[in-house]
Amino acid sequence: MKAVRIYGEKDVRVEDVTIDDPKDDEVQVRVKYCGICGSDLHAYLEGWGLPTQPYPLTGKTVPITLGHEFSGEVVKVGKDVDTLKIGDDVAIEPLIACGKCENCRKGDYNFCNNAVAADGAGNFLGFSQDGGFAEFANVQGVFAHKLPEGMDPELGAVAEPTAVVYEAVKRSGLREGENVAVMGAGPIGLLMALLAKISGANKVYIVDVSKVRLAKAKELGIENTINPSEEDVNEVIRKDLLNGVDITFECAGVQATFDTALKVTKRTGTLQVVALFGKDVSMNMTDDVIMQGINITTTLCYNNSFPAVLGIINNHPDTFRKIITKEIGLDQAVDEGIKALAEDKSQVKILVSPDL
Amino acid sequence: MKAVRIYGEKDVRVEDVTIDDPKDDEVQVRVKYCGICGSDLHAYLEGWGLPTQPYPLTGKTVPITLGHEFSGEVVKVGKDVDTLKIGDDVAIEPLIACGKCENCRKGDYNFCNNAVAADGAGNFLGFSQDGGFAEFANVQGVFAHKLPEGMDPELGAVAEPTAVVYEAVKRSGLREGENVAVMGAGPIGLLMALLAKISGANKVYIVDVSKVRLAKAKELGIENTINPSEEDVNEVIRKDLLNGVDITFECAGVQATFDTALKVTKRTGTLQVVALFGKDVSMNMTDDVIMQGINITTTLCYNNSFPAVLGIINNHPDTFRKIITKEIGLDQAVDEGIKALAEDKSQVKILVSPDL
Repeated sequence: MKAVRIYGEKDVRVEDVTIDDPKDDEVQVRVKYCGICGSDLHAYLEGWGLPTQPYPLTGKTVPITLGHEFSGEVVKVGKDVDTLKIGDDVAIEPLIACGKCENCRKGDYNFCNNAVAADGAGNFLGFSQDGGFAEFANVQGVFAHKLPEGMDPELGAVAEPTAVVYEAVKRSGLREGENVAVMGAGPIGLLMALLAKISGANKVYIVDVSKVRLAKAKELGIENTINPSEEDVNEVIRKDLLNGVDITFECAGVQATFDTALKVTKRTGTLQVVALFGKDVSMNMTDDVIMQGINITTTLCYNNSFPAVLGIINNHPDTFRKIITKEIGLDQAVDEGIKALAEDKSQVKILVSPDL
Repeated sequence: MKAVRIYGEKDVRVEDVTIDDPKDDEVQVRVKYCGICGSDLHAYLEGWGLPTQPYPLTGKTVPITLGHEFSGEVVKVGKDVDTLKIGDDVAIEPLIACGKCENCRKGDYNFCNNAVAADGAGNFLGFSQDGGFAEFANVQGVFAHKLPEGMDPELGAVAEPTAVVYEAVKRSGLREGENVAVMGAGPIGLLMALLAKISGANKVYIVDVSKVRLAKAKELGIENTINPSEEDVNEVIRKDLLNGVDITFECAGVQATFDTALKVTKRTGTLQVVALFGKDVSMNMTDDVIMQGINITTTLCYNNSFPAVLGIINNHPDTFRKIITKEIGLDQAVDEGIKALAEDKSQVKILVSPDL
């Protein structure tokens, strides 16, 4: 079968490979759609998250089939999987976890203690196990979630990034009627703002220096856009909300946006970190955090949320369809996919499909 | 009456002053004991937290009577105070709050939105309102908490710092049976470790570079002492606890201890900041916080906790009495009190009493 394989930094090859039968606890999925994520770009540009030595739970090293935001149809079912049958459409929760350690057993399987690699390889399909930029993929049955009846598999491929922002909402404790700021209007920032609105947030501000991205936000129904190169973010927000927002979702991951996030959040509010940070971040802990009573919470992936996320997407199909801005075939995954995502700020979610 | 008044940086004078009758919502207290806090030292050395312009809720500027950890006997009762009578022994919760803003009304009166001063003056008695290093003090009735029957007023003066660590336990979510590390064995670190033990923590490690302080910790029954200048803190803890501690209480407030705190805390554990930080702190947000799922929580003072705290102290009088290492009169408050606390690491809690 055809697969998009990464060998290391800036070395991605579309190759013909074979695939084994699924193990007893796995299903084999014929991939329908697989989204491109910012982390695929980091893997491509910097080799980020790739196993250079055998990954603890999978024994895999590069090359690895990229792609972790995928949906497909079950074509083979391992003998221990009793929740799925051939023909089921599923969305894949692309985590690698032992299921046995303390964190797995308390539900925090995204922090599986046995999925920690010395070289920092990621505990995800598409990093330390073959992923979804391929015609077929084997995945653990527990991580293949059946789509709601009649749901378009295109939307199933949006479940993974939506689960990221769902987890952020969950961790932040966002309640209906609260006010929210979102730093960054990239794919995750836009999804974050959308989900905050769906979750009943009152005012939702989205902040980005890119006019193209803010225009996209408006197109998606997020009305309060702020461009920090044109306006003082804190002033704009405090004009409406004297005390600031209840929750700020940091979806940009740089010092400047982190600083702004601290400023616009009200005393006793929450700064929910969603983005990964490329560099160390520093803060005036006493004046800006302790004295303001600001909770800084972070989030890594998701756990136990795919069924809820699929339900949400299925209840708002038109909204989520709007974030899909391009569809391409496996051969175009790098040049028209991964690279385009970095260069073309009008792109939100690019889907790769082996059928195209 | 005699009072210890601070005029600014390194300018403290013991003076004769008059005191007004209490307002309708206040009581007047004859001070019995008032503890010296690290923040008194900061006020003395750097003018930290002092009002250089009229403080929003009190209208006060320096000079101010220092002292915020005090107990005493009610000698006058304002006409609107119906919970106290003359002769009652009370411990003072030394906060200044409006009682009307959003934060006050939701119980977070330690973050009163109307108690924010442009010059950073503290929302505490002893900073922006006259405090307890005096023969008498007027305090709001709601902030004067009656001591449990028969409780020694010396122990009442320990309520305030104990409330600080009680709030930290509350915010951290510490549960009985969990393992804890405490960074710093100063007065707050020692109280933190004591309260963690009282709260049912399993192993409690306390970390400090001062041998004198670690000896004090042992004397107080905290057995697991670690000196980072002699041992690798993370190695010592991980020898016992492969995954690290559940909660680390940061009671030192410098970059080095913060870094160690992140290291020794288990994945999905909590780093509870208790100390104020004198300088900016930086962190590798991605690798050390997000990827570890570590919750970083902070705490400022306390709210709605004095009755519980007084109950705890009253249930463990011998334990809490051990932290009182010296008692002095008002005239000695600076030289044998504030300065001694900075220089003599065997001191934990020095009490000032107008009766001495």
